[in-house]
Amino acid sequence: MAPSLDVAARAASSHTVDGPAGQVAAPESVAGEQAAGARDIAAADLVVTHVEQRKSPPPASALVFGHTFADHMLAIEWTSAEGWQAPQIKPYGPLVLDPSSVIFHYAPSLFEGMKAYKDVEGKVRLFRPDMNMKRMNTSAERIALPTFSGKELIKLIAKLVELDAAWIPSEPGHSLYIRPALIGTQAALGVHPTTDALLFVISSPVGPYYKTGFKPVALEADPARVRAWPGGTGNFKLGSNYAPGIRPQMEAAKRGYQQNLWLFGDEHWLTEVGTMNLFVVLKKGEGIEIVTPPLDGMILPGVTRDSILALARDHAAGSIALEGVPQQVTVSERGINMGEIQQAEKDGSLCEIFGAGTAAVVSPVDRIGYMGKDIHIPVGEGGVGAVAKAMLQRIQDIQLGRVEHPWSVLVEDLVK
Amino acid sequence: MAPSLDVAARAASSHTVDGPAGQVAAPESVAGEQAAGARDIAAADLVVTHVEQRKSPPPASALVFGHTFADHMLAIEWTSAEGWQAPQIKPYGPLVLDPSSVIFHYAPSLFEGMKAYKDVEGKVRLFRPDMNMKRMNTSAERIALPTFSGKELIKLIAKLVELDAAWIPSEPGHSLYIRPALIGTQAALGVHPTTDALLFVISSPVGPYYKTGFKPVALEADPARVRAWPGGTGNFKLGSNYAPGIRPQMEAAKRGYQQNLWLFGDEHWLTEVGTMNLFVVLKKGEGIEIVTPPLDGMILPGVTRDSILALARDHAAGSIALEGVPQQVTVSERGINMGEIQQAEKDGSLCEIFGAGTAAVVSPVDRIGYMGKDIHIPVGEGGVGAVAKAMLQRIQDIQLGRVEHPWSVLVEDLVK
Repeated sequence: MAPSLDVAARAASSHTVDGPAGQVAAPESVAGEQAAGARDIAAADLVVTHVEQRKSPPPASALVFGHTFADHMLAIEWTSAEGWQAPQIKPYGPLVLDPSSVIFHYAPSLFEGMKAYKDVEGKVRLFRPDMNMKRMNTSAERIALPTFSGKELIKLIAKLVELDAAWIPSEPGHSLYIRPALIGTQAALGVHPTTDALLFVISSPVGPYYKTGFKPVALEADPARVRAWPGGTGNFKLGSNYAPGIRPQMEAAKRGYQQNLWLFGDEHWLTEVGTMNLFVVLKKGEGIEIVTPPLDGMILPGVTRDSILALARDHAAGSIALEGVPQQVTVSERGINMGEIQQAEKDGSLCEIFGAGTAAVVSPVDRIGYMGKDIHIPVGEGGVGAVAKAMLQRIQDIQLGRVEHPWSVLVEDLVK
Repeated sequence: MAPSLDVAARAASSHTVDGPAGQVAAPESVAGEQAAGARDIAAADLVVTHVEQRKSPPPASALVFGHTFADHMLAIEWTSAEGWQAPQIKPYGPLVLDPSSVIFHYAPSLFEGMKAYKDVEGKVRLFRPDMNMKRMNTSAERIALPTFSGKELIKLIAKLVELDAAWIPSEPGHSLYIRPALIGTQAALGVHPTTDALLFVISSPVGPYYKTGFKPVALEADPARVRAWPGGTGNFKLGSNYAPGIRPQMEAAKRGYQQNLWLFGDEHWLTEVGTMNLFVVLKKGEGIEIVTPPLDGMILPGVTRDSILALARDHAAGSIALEGVPQQVTVSERGINMGEIQQAEKDGSLCEIFGAGTAAVVSPVDRIGYMGKDIHIPVGEGGVGAVAKAMLQRIQDIQLGRVEHPWSVLVEDLVK
C-alpha cells in the first residue's frame, strides 16, 4: 500500500464484507526461501509420543490465564532445504536452542490465539480455525518465515486437543486456550531469511474472562504512542507488535487506565485498544451505527472482529435477531476519530465502546482519558452495553453448539 | 515526542553535538517492575566454569560472519523479585526455555554489536563500550526489560574477551564480534512486563567486511516500506525492529538492489540504509557538507554514526586532519529528502553516500533505485569516496591503537 500520511481516505472507506484474506494484501511471493519440492506439513506423518504419566489439571477455580499447560505439545521443524519435517506430538517440554538462534536477536516470531470448548453434549469444538490458519500464513509470509497447508495444521491441532481433552474445563465459560507459534531458529547472527524454523502448539486451560460480571475498562488515548503505521506490520500477528506496547500499558496503568487506546495521525483516528480490535456504537436516526476501523494495513484482522461484523450484518438484514439490539443497524467499517467521539459524547449519541478479541470476546469500555480530560461512555446495566452483550451471547452460543453454525467445528470431524 | 506527521521540522534540526543518551528521550521511569532493593549486576560475583577442552578457531580465511562462536559465553539471570543473579561465564551452549517463554511470543528482546581487536602491540581493545551499555539500558527501559550497571557489564565482557582472547584473529581487519543480548523469559502467556529475563553475551571471530576492496551497494528507495515512525521504537536497538525488514530486503534483492534505503513521510525523507545509519556528502561552496538525519526518535543512535560526526567536527575545527577531506567541512544533522538527492545529482553537487555501522564501519553506495529510475552516486577510485575512506582509516587507526584516543579501551585495564 502507499505510505501516504494523508489518512483522510480512511474516513471514506467502503463497507464491503470483509475477510482477513480479502483485505490484507499478501506481499509478492518471493522465490528462494524454500527449495523447490520442499515438503509441506503432512498430518499423515504425525509421530505421537505420550507422556509417561498424565498430570492432573488444576481445579477450574485456580486457573490463571497462560500459566498452566496441558500434557502434550505439537512441534514441527522446518528447514529451507527440505521443508517441513514429520509433525510430532510429544510431552510438553522446553525448547533447546543455540544462543545465536535468530529468535533471540531479530524477533522472527508470530502466533495465534484459539480456543477449544466442550459443548452442551460434551463434544469438543473449535471456533473458525481456518481464519487463524489463513492469518498465520499471511504473518509468516510478511517476515520470511515458511508457509504451510492450514488444513493439515488444523488436523494436527485437532489431534492434540483430542489427546489432551481432559484439560478442557467443562465449567461454563471455561475453555482450552490454544497457542500456535512459529519462530525462526537458525543458529547464526545476521539479519537474513532464516534457514530453520519451528512451529509449535501449546495449550492452556482458562477460566471465564469475567468471573464476577463485566468489569468495564478505562483507556488512555495518548497520541504520542503509536502502535502501527502505513507500510509497517500492524495488520499481521507478529511478536514484534507486542513488546513495544508493554511500557505504554504500564504508564497508562500508573495513571489509572487499564489499557491504551491506540490513535493514529494528526486527527487522532482510533485504531485498536490494548491487544484488541475496537467497536463504537452510535445512535443513528431511529437505530444505531456499529463502527469499527477499516482493515487499512494498520489494523489486525481479528477473528472476533470479523464475527461481530458478520453477525451485525445478519441482524441488520433480518436473518438473525440479536436480543436487545435495535432492528435498524448500520454496520460501518470506517475511520472514526477522537473529535467524533467527543462530539458524540456531547450530543448524547455515544452508546457503547468495546474491545473485541479471542480472550474476552468483548471488553466494555466506560472511560477514555484524552488530552487531560475523561470521556465517559455508557455501559448499561451489569457493566456492558446492549450490542456487546448480545454479541457475546451469540458468539458463545455458537462456540458451545447451542446454536448450530458453520463457524463451530467438531474436533471429531477434523481428526477423521 | 509528539507524533506529528508534519516532518518539516526535521529539515530545521539543529547541529548540536550529540551523544545517543543526550538525544534519546528516556521513557518516564516506572516503578514496580523490579522489587525495591533488588540486586544490580556485580562483576565481583562472577562464577567461571571453563570448557573441558578448548576448540580450535577456524582459519581466518574460512570465517563467515556470525557462524562460529568462541568457547565461552556470559549469562546473567534476572528475576523481578531478586534482581540480577551472580554472573556466569560458562561453556558456550544452548538456552533451555519453556515453550511459553515470552521471548517466543511477544519479542521482548534487544541486542548490541561490539568488536574486540588485537592492537599493534598484540593487546586487546574495545571501541567505545560505554556507548553500547548506555544504549542497551535505553532499549531495555523502552520494553520493560531490566536495566543494570553498564560499568559492571563492561568488566564482565572484558573478562569474557580475555578468557577467549585466542579467538580474536590477529590478521589485519579481523576482529572478535561481541553480541550482548537481553531477552524476557517468563514462562507464561500474556502481554505483560516479564518477571524473568536473561542477559547473555556470545562472541564470534569475523574477517574484514571488504575482503577484496570496497564493494559499493545499490539501494532501493521504496516509499511503501516504512522502518520506523514517530512514537514507535526506531531509536532503540530492539529485536522487533529487524524481522520486519527482512522481506523488503529480499524483494529489493530480486530487483538487483542489495539493501533498502528507508524513507519516511510524503516528502520521502532519508532515514537509514539496511541496518545502518546514513551519511550524504554534498559540495558546498569551496568545501563540503556532511549530512546525516537527526536523532528525531526514528533513527538508531549508532556508535559509528556518533564517531563519524565527532571526527568530522574535529576535522572542521582543525584539531585533526582527515586525509583527502577538504578542510572546509560543514557537519549537519538535518533532514534530507529524495528531492534534494535528485537535485544534487542533477547539479553535480552529490559527492558520496555511505552507510555507517559496527560491522562494516562504512559501506559506500553507488546507486539508488527510486520511482522507477536509478540515481547514480560517485564512489571514487577503489569504490569508495574520500570521506568514507578517511573515516574508515581514522576509526580503524583508533580501534587498533595506531592513534591513541579515549574511545579505544584496553581490556587489561577493564578487568583490573
